[in-house]
Amino acid sequence: MAMGPRVKVFLLAVVCAAIGLVVGVLIGFFSRSGGRADVETLLSEEESWVSGALMAEIDPGRIEGYLRKLTEKPHLAGTEGSYTLAEYVRQTWLEQGLDSAHIAPYHVLLSYPHPDKPSYVALLDSNDDEMFRSAPREPNLDLDPPANISSVVPPFAAYSPSGTVEGDLVCVNYGRTSDFARLESLNINVAGKIVIARYGKTSRGRKLRRCQVRGALGLIVYSDPADTVGTGPAADDRPVYPEGWFGPGTAVQRGHYLYTQVEGEPLTPGYPAKDYMFRLNENASEPLPTIPAYPIGYNDAWHLLSAMDGPEAPSSWRGGLNITYRLGPGLQASGRARKVRLNVNVNREVRPIHNVIGVIRGRVEPDRYVLLGNHRDAWNLGGVDPSSGTSSLMEVSHAFGAMVKKGWRPRRSLVFCSWDAEEYGIHGSFEWVEDFGKILTERAVAYLNVDMAVRATYSLRGRASPQLAPALLEAAKKVPWPVSAPEGKTMYDVWRKRTPEVNGDPDTKPRVDLPRSGSDFTPFVHRLGVPAIDLAFFQDTSMGIWDYPLYHTAYATFHLQKKIIDPDFLFHRAMSQLWAETARSLADSLILPFRLSEYGAVLGGMMEDLESRYGTQLAARDISLDSLSSAVNNFTTAVDTFDAEVAGAKITDPFVARMYNDQLMQLERAFIDPQGLPGRKFYRHTVMASRLYSSATFPALGDAIYLAVNNKADSEGAWRDVRKQLSIITFIIQSAANTLVKIDLTS
Amino acid sequence: MAMGPRVKVFLLAVVCAAIGLVVGVLIGFFSRSGGRADVETLLSEEESWVSGALMAEIDPGRIEGYLRKLTEKPHLAGTEGSYTLAEYVRQTWLEQGLDSAHIAPYHVLLSYPHPDKPSYVALLDSNDDEMFRSAPREPNLDLDPPANISSVVPPFAAYSPSGTVEGDLVCVNYGRTSDFARLESLNINVAGKIVIARYGKTSRGRKLRRCQVRGALGLIVYSDPADTVGTGPAADDRPVYPEGWFGPGTAVQRGHYLYTQVEGEPLTPGYPAKDYMFRLNENASEPLPTIPAYPIGYNDAWHLLSAMDGPEAPSSWRGGLNITYRLGPGLQASGRARKVRLNVNVNREVRPIHNVIGVIRGRVEPDRYVLLGNHRDAWNLGGVDPSSGTSSLMEVSHAFGAMVKKGWRPRRSLVFCSWDAEEYGIHGSFEWVEDFGKILTERAVAYLNVDMAVRATYSLRGRASPQLAPALLEAAKKVPWPVSAPEGKTMYDVWRKRTPEVNGDPDTKPRVDLPRSGSDFTPFVHRLGVPAIDLAFFQDTSMGIWDYPLYHTAYATFHLQKKIIDPDFLFHRAMSQLWAETARSLADSLILPFRLSEYGAVLGGMMEDLESRYGTQLAARDISLDSLSSAVNNFTTAVDTFDAEVAGAKITDPFVARMYNDQLMQLERAFIDPQGLPGRKFYRHTVMASRLYSSATFPALGDAIYLAVNNKADSEGAWRDVRKQLSIITFIIQSAANTLVKIDLTS
Repeated sequence: MAMGPRVKVFLLAVVCAAIGLVVGVLIGFFSRSGGRADVETLLSEEESWVSGALMAEIDPGRIEGYLRKLTEKPHLAGTEGSYTLAEYVRQTWLEQGLDSAHIAPYHVLLSYPHPDKPSYVALLDSNDDEMFRSAPREPNLDLDPPANISSVVPPFAAYSPSGTVEGDLVCVNYGRTSDFARLESLNINVAGKIVIARYGKTSRGRKLRRCQVRGALGLIVYSDPADTVGTGPAADDRPVYPEGWFGPGTAVQRGHYLYTQVEGEPLTPGYPAKDYMFRLNENASEPLPTIPAYPIGYNDAWHLLSAMDGPEAPSSWRGGLNITYRLGPGLQASGRARKVRLNVNVNREVRPIHNVIGVIRGRVEPDRYVLLGNHRDAWNLGGVDPSSGTSSLMEVSHAFGAMVKKGWRPRRSLVFCSWDAEEYGIHGSFEWVEDFGKILTERAVAYLNVDMAVRATYSLRGRASPQLAPALLEAAKKVPWPVSAPEGKTMYDVWRKRTPEVNGDPDTKPRVDLPRSGSDFTPFVHRLGVPAIDLAFFQDTSMGIWDYPLYHTAYATFHLQKKIIDPDFLFHRAMSQLWAETARSLADSLILPFRLSEYGAVLGGMMEDLESRYGTQLAARDISLDSLSSAVNNFTTAVDTFDAEVAGAKITDPFVARMYNDQLMQLERAFIDPQGLPGRKFYRHTVMASRLYSSATFPALGDAIYLAVNNKADSEGAWRDVRKQLSIITFIIQSAANTLVKIDLTS
Repeated sequence: MAMGPRVKVFLLAVVCAAIGLVVGVLIGFFSRSGGRADVETLLSEEESWVSGALMAEIDPGRIEGYLRKLTEKPHLAGTEGSYTLAEYVRQTWLEQGLDSAHIAPYHVLLSYPHPDKPSYVALLDSNDDEMFRSAPREPNLDLDPPANISSVVPPFAAYSPSGTVEGDLVCVNYGRTSDFARLESLNINVAGKIVIARYGKTSRGRKLRRCQVRGALGLIVYSDPADTVGTGPAADDRPVYPEGWFGPGTAVQRGHYLYTQVEGEPLTPGYPAKDYMFRLNENASEPLPTIPAYPIGYNDAWHLLSAMDGPEAPSSWRGGLNITYRLGPGLQASGRARKVRLNVNVNREVRPIHNVIGVIRGRVEPDRYVLLGNHRDAWNLGGVDPSSGTSSLMEVSHAFGAMVKKGWRPRRSLVFCSWDAEEYGIHGSFEWVEDFGKILTERAVAYLNVDMAVRATYSLRGRASPQLAPALLEAAKKVPWPVSAPEGKTMYDVWRKRTPEVNGDPDTKPRVDLPRSGSDFTPFVHRLGVPAIDLAFFQDTSMGIWDYPLYHTAYATFHLQKKIIDPDFLFHRAMSQLWAETARSLADSLILPFRLSEYGAVLGGMMEDLESRYGTQLAARDISLDSLSSAVNNFTTAVDTFDAEVAGAKITDPFVARMYNDQLMQLERAFIDPQGLPGRKFYRHTVMASRLYSSATFPALGDAIYLAVNNKADSEGAWRDVRKQLSIITFIIQSAANTLVKIDLTS
């Protein structure tokens, strides 16, 4: 950066400080004499100065430097590589001007390939001799910039037990419940067989659990070109790595195979994995798999799939390989291969992991936290997941640190979080949230997550608690779209045109989903009820590719960003700007910029969905939705009353501001049921939880109705459960409404 | 009251208001220029004026009037009598000047005697003819002041199932676990028998459950004169009702027989019993008894006990009847009686109950609540339990209302609670706490309970969360002991001499116990972690009588107070003064008067007890207490650091005051484990819970060690559980310490 802009920024900061002083004095004055409108105008002027200064601090060249450093070596959780980067993050944060930065370690169960015995899949002939054996790792490549791909941990299924199984092969497509049902309707059973499934559509852990409960011997998972290159004529023109973004046949997706009904570290459920903490025996741990699994690429999968016997796969099951996809069981008699061997050598061990927590102390309310987080551990060199996010985070902390060095300080505290062991099941953030649950429940304003900041550059994917979405969209209006685009100049413009709220209508708002689960925001939302945002630049999913093709493969290198995705790091800059500005507005506004009516709209939508989808069936059972409907209406009314009260309140009185802010902040907590959802006691958010069965309505109630409608076996019990879940969600919503209007505990 | 004092009080109020104004202005001034010491002096002067004015409002004559009104008619939960009084309380509170008062209804499972078929116990001869039948109710008495004793519900065991059982009789003393063990060591089994037990030492529900799990047919419970008149030569001089305080042979103790491992309404565990709420089937409700039970007095018990056969009872089992106490089974062959019949006719039904909630809105922090509560429902006319408490509460609300009418208003909100259905298992307060759990967790400062305000006049029994005890003792120093006493002039003086903290040492502080369980503070403490106080005037327990003799009998009348216990209502006045002044100090102090070091002392005491009691056995198992010990030390250090910080802080800055007050208020919540205690998921307070087995240390850990030491069966599993409970309590204490010092989330 040249001298000119630095001086400008410095002057700007001086002006900010001066304005801050004047505003402070005026607040003091007006808190005696009223004059709310004047104070608000001044505050908003100050905010817009700070916002501009903050965003100007963000520099793509520095982000590139961070990413280069972060992707030099592997940084798998529980290894020296991750610890070294933890220390680097901590030191950098201190140098950047944060008030404190420290390492928060936990001891968690992790999983690694056996150092000497590689795992593999093989085809055996009638003499049990191996005719084909899968590649032990992705080949190293000559790249610019260079990357030591062979330093990356070999492909494996984390937490798989070790063992060798041999037998017939059965294909289950993606391994969804519906896939198994289809297979069973064709009288093909996986019991006693080795299953082959393709990646996608459902989690690794669920694929495996579905095989396990059906008595399969083991599971092979592969990446089909249909899912990593796409299908149709366009697919032929899509360059695979190292030339392009799409997946080559040698690429293998790593990942954990925990059955994450219960998230967090598998041996210390509900408590932080401190060194002194009691641990379950592994056989008492619900999420750990008991049959071996192993992932391969599509080059290796071709050998297996092309040898398979049995009926031809249904058309929707066929992938992108130039073969006839068959279901099995078994291999073609015309070939030499007689069975498949799956040999897995994977260890589990408790090792230390290292979160890094850095803090900028709030000027006025140090005991209110706006948290920004990203995980640091990677299966590979981390070029996308997570280091594109980590480099963006480092730039956000740099920008705030620079503002602090110039004398500015946010009203509330900013907390920067670099999580470890996310890849193993969101362990780092889960354990920290379990450790600091009391403090966070009481004091956390919001948690803003970025995992893969830039996996592509088509549009933004935003997930947010409903009341946070408006603040996010306001920030998006301030951030320029990084390159010239016909849709408009700002992130907001392009986002709403390319991924509108209502599909096919580019004149609606940008699409913002609920933060159901998937990254480090999960424990904040589902354990504690802290509202959250999750951001990523995303590909155009209309080409039929959802997971980005090199996800968890050895090919997610610095080269991938520098040569293919974001050569000038402009999208990284945009992500840092959006993240920083959203955090600033949450940390610095006198009254929190939460719009509660958005929550009302979500509840109203769930109510409508419930009525239209199940109204008739419920009425036939004499189950009235009146109480629920009235709770949802009461919520809406409570929000209106609350908003009107705040609009008329003397918010320059500190106790008044704090009271309303506490109500705003705590609203999301009101949706937490301390008893948890049915069968998932650590999923405690009654609105945001993922539903187990397809439905768009209230999760536990929707699931109960689905079971009652589809399960003839215990129909009385199932309908009793519907009534129970209906009354619980009614109470929860009414209780949430009460938090907004019952300051006097009136009824 | 004459005109003179009224004018004085009015002037006093005007002076208060003026001082308030000056202080307000000065706070404004000093909050800019510092000067904490001056502000504190002024505040403390203002507080002492308000305190004096408030106590001067309290009038024994008015309390007598309230009690007379409250004891006119029975007011059993779920009946017109209780609803009528609810309306009376609500109206009175509005007239007294409270800002709001409303009824909060719930629909709970209650239990009543069959209206036409009286329950009874009978002795049958060899023809199955009844030779003796128990009295259907206590006889009416000619009293001054009169009381319609026959309007009181007949004696019954609430929630008992209906049924008739016949068989041999076995005596189990108090029905404690140790009593059953002793009986079993003598090869006497209760299976297939009717059990007779005396009241005392353990709850009704536990007596019954112990019979039920051992296969008994039914349970008869009686009041032994040893427990209601006492034993020894002095007993002969103790007048029984209506002449005196002790129990006549016709008196029968009513009560509920729920097995309250899980408290609250038995059909809606964990959720409020709103009209729309889902209810368990009764057979799925854990606390409901399945064998019939019935209570009798000692006149009737004499017929049964004197006819019993079997070995003579151990000396400690013998009561105060002039008979040879025998264990059974069966009846003496020399008599005519051959067996016992127990005929129970009791209904269960869901009925509405009515809590009343009244509020005085706080001047500065309306969203912070100091709650004062007492239950209103009674088994009888309520002369002691609970109306002596209700009349005291009505006078406290009167006094605060009078202050409000004069322009004063507490800094925080005061919430007055009149609970229904406490007698049935603390239902009214439990359901309300379940209903408003989110709000109370976030905003409740403390809950101050009085149940039986004046059962006797010997000394005070105080129970308090450790950090509240100092504020309670300060208040006790301001309240005069109602009558002349050699021990001193104030409540504090007499209390500490008659019931000192250290037995036998009258120079220690007054004894204050932990609020483990027993009345409406239970849901506040154990469900939410709201700190609580519970107060009562008590008898001299050295005479060997713990429950007051007329407890839950029809004889707890206005006559009992007016002629026997507190004729001039001076002890009622003292209770109202103590209650009001404690509440005032919690509601009005700038910084909450919580002394956290007292909590540290309780934890330290538990740690010492653990080491001295079990240290050797734990060491032999290689179980180290180092982590726990260091957590306890960290807690103490954190308290010291916190106290020093507050002492040096600019508490005139509203955000600073609020931050420290929030930490003070929330500390007790930190001891709540959302997962609950082992096997008792709704008992969530890890320090305050009642222990299941005798020990003075951390409850879950103490219980686990007890089981491991005493249970040879699954010794490995039991010791694993010790390690688990040890690590959980270590984490909880460390986590509580963190809430005091980790404003910056540093490690």
